[in-house]
Amino acid sequence: MKPVKVGLLGLGTVGTGVVRIVEGHQEDLQSQVGSPILISKILVKDRAKSRNVAVDASKLTEDPWEIVRDPEIDVIVEVMGGVAHSRDVILEALERGKHVVTANKDLMAMHGPEILAKAREKGCDVLYEASVAGGIPIIRTLIEGFSSDRITKIMGIVNGTTNYILTKMSREGAAYADVLKEAQALGYAESDPTSDVEGLDAARKMTILSTLGFRANVALEDVSAKGISNVTQEDIGYAKRLGYEVKLLGIAERQDDTISVSVQPTMVKTSHPIASVNGVFNAVYVHGEAVGETMFYGPGAGEMPTATSVVADLVAVVKNMKLGVNGRQAQLSYKVMKLKTDEQISSKYFLLLHVDDKAGVLAQIAQVFSNLDVSIESVMQPSAPHKSGAELIIITHNASKAAMNKVLQAFEALPAVQQIKSVYRVEG
Amino acid sequence: MKPVKVGLLGLGTVGTGVVRIVEGHQEDLQSQVGSPILISKILVKDRAKSRNVAVDASKLTEDPWEIVRDPEIDVIVEVMGGVAHSRDVILEALERGKHVVTANKDLMAMHGPEILAKAREKGCDVLYEASVAGGIPIIRTLIEGFSSDRITKIMGIVNGTTNYILTKMSREGAAYADVLKEAQALGYAESDPTSDVEGLDAARKMTILSTLGFRANVALEDVSAKGISNVTQEDIGYAKRLGYEVKLLGIAERQDDTISVSVQPTMVKTSHPIASVNGVFNAVYVHGEAVGETMFYGPGAGEMPTATSVVADLVAVVKNMKLGVNGRQAQLSYKVMKLKTDEQISSKYFLLLHVDDKAGVLAQIAQVFSNLDVSIESVMQPSAPHKSGAELIIITHNASKAAMNKVLQAFEALPAVQQIKSVYRVEG
Repeated sequence: MKPVKVGLLGLGTVGTGVVRIVEGHQEDLQSQVGSPILISKILVKDRAKSRNVAVDASKLTEDPWEIVRDPEIDVIVEVMGGVAHSRDVILEALERGKHVVTANKDLMAMHGPEILAKAREKGCDVLYEASVAGGIPIIRTLIEGFSSDRITKIMGIVNGTTNYILTKMSREGAAYADVLKEAQALGYAESDPTSDVEGLDAARKMTILSTLGFRANVALEDVSAKGISNVTQEDIGYAKRLGYEVKLLGIAERQDDTISVSVQPTMVKTSHPIASVNGVFNAVYVHGEAVGETMFYGPGAGEMPTATSVVADLVAVVKNMKLGVNGRQAQLSYKVMKLKTDEQISSKYFLLLHVDDKAGVLAQIAQVFSNLDVSIESVMQPSAPHKSGAELIIITHNASKAAMNKVLQAFEALPAVQQIKSVYRVEG
Repeated sequence: MKPVKVGLLGLGTVGTGVVRIVEGHQEDLQSQVGSPILISKILVKDRAKSRNVAVDASKLTEDPWEIVRDPEIDVIVEVMGGVAHSRDVILEALERGKHVVTANKDLMAMHGPEILAKAREKGCDVLYEASVAGGIPIIRTLIEGFSSDRITKIMGIVNGTTNYILTKMSREGAAYADVLKEAQALGYAESDPTSDVEGLDAARKMTILSTLGFRANVALEDVSAKGISNVTQEDIGYAKRLGYEVKLLGIAERQDDTISVSVQPTMVKTSHPIASVNGVFNAVYVHGEAVGETMFYGPGAGEMPTATSVVADLVAVVKNMKLGVNGRQAQLSYKVMKLKTDEQISSKYFLLLHVDDKAGVLAQIAQVFSNLDVSIESVMQPSAPHKSGAELIIITHNASKAAMNKVLQAFEALPAVQQIKSVYRVEG
């Protein structure tokens, strides 16, 4: 039987996993798709470099165009990363009628609509399961599993590095900077960790998930992102005392035709299923109008988990080829949604204030909340007051982001409030 | 545009949900599949009965054959339950070239291979996402999401009734019989609860999951099932003290070409993600050779969650109709597997023994384990001995089921062992 020929762009961690699975599971794959799957060319940076996986040296090339322009190749698997160059290569591959499987979240978050439009024009598949939450098949779940439902909320722990850091801080009482160093030494964090710790990586993934979940085009600029670099041991300690875990959550919410998408450190009630997702694991919690609460949990990265998703996409492409139905994915982003204003975004908040220790301060603070119509759920003074003042923890009922911003402004102007130490969104 | 016509068999809980979603989400559905979806006939037991949902009385019929033989109807949605009659009706529908969506786990566990073979013969789709774990899209995840991987283990909390009972027993210290009564009063358990509490319902679902996960035909008779009716408050109390939760788990394991599938109350380490799945929620934990650990969590039953899965299948059928690719699902059960023997089935065990309180008893017990090559992880005397004897908790390392059976036989014959109070499999 004529094999399906695949051009693999990139032979790093994920690329190596793809080679291992395609070769190691060849018989299984063939039983499913009806013909052999052959990786016929592989793009590498340096042909001379030694590899963790045995590959025929004659397949290696340093020229992506040699692969993309090879008329024998049916499918391009892009696992090299980067944005501008990958975009050019993939658009050219589609132009030539090749199907594409990619694990590139940056590319899909920034140029997804352009790439998918070209794919439709050319009758080609573009699948990207591995771009979000590595081994968790969340993208096909959002497209197919929830096709009948209206998704109202998606909350994701979609960055393993920050979840590893927060888990370590929570379990071991270690400081952020120390855990980050350790994560870097273990290879869980990059030497420049900005993209992970400042929430940018998570924001890109939330762009993809919310586009699919709400069937509306969400742009990366629509996602407000805040990272974990200011999370302190003190915050985590108070969170635990009150029955919360601090997690970096991507939160996408929909109400009628308005949506909001954000990434921020969040206090999550320990009884919520997403609160117990620890270490480098990822999880995506999805709330649907009809289905209610669901959650999908698994490894967010790593050679083999990510490669599993890439090869599952490859299987889907080859099945579509056999059936002659590539490029017929429904036009998914058929809804027009407006971004919620700060007046429309609502949640509970946790505040940690450092205030003067004298009579009447609490009354002043309560008055600020009352003036701005923000209702307080609980107030707590977690330790005895000391010379320099007292700590005050306030948890609000649901309040708009706009109202909370005004509360914070009012506190800045209130002499009795020495410092606004922390502000967290609260979920669960 | 010509609508796709659907015949709905059954207007109980799930059927009502299907009507609500198909009507309430008509615009969304149409955007995805390109034509209206119309429920044109509905089978009911009694046309005169009042309904929870507004349906045109002219659509109702008490004769299934009127629906199945209607040449206008393209898809049959079967949510009436039962086995023999449903089988006849579905086979006839397939014979007439109609596609089938069913939520019927009993039918698929017992007659799945026959029905799927007929569907292939006739070029029809048979989809059954709702038959296992209601709102969790676990079936398409096993087929598509893990198509590239080799699944080695599936553990499922796939029966909401028993999970509700065990959760209540664990949280409130209530006795089994009392919680069962309460669950019956709330409608979470049937008046004859046998199928749920004896693990038969879970066994049927595990038949379906293991067939899909291992791509081998697993028959209901291959699944050994034990229920929760003997789980005591004492067992749950000791489990908690040792860091376990008692859960009714379906466990399917594969090693090379051997498999085992069972359902039993199991002690699960609290750190394992499946241990914190509570109440009527379901979860399926899947371990794949490449992907590692994943878990899928959500509502296991209920009108709207189950209907979500039914309508998602309906969307998939209609998409296939538009593409002209119905009935082309790969032949999934292409592997021949042998059932593991008791010598090959291995796990850790928890034992609670009531023994004589005198010197040398522990030595005798240890000797039994040693003679049968079962290694002990820990021994604990959870309370001070009393007149009538002492309690002894033993947790073993991995041991074969055959060896454990011999250990239990030896204890039966050992005078110092007054009673084998409990035996549990241990996971996590």
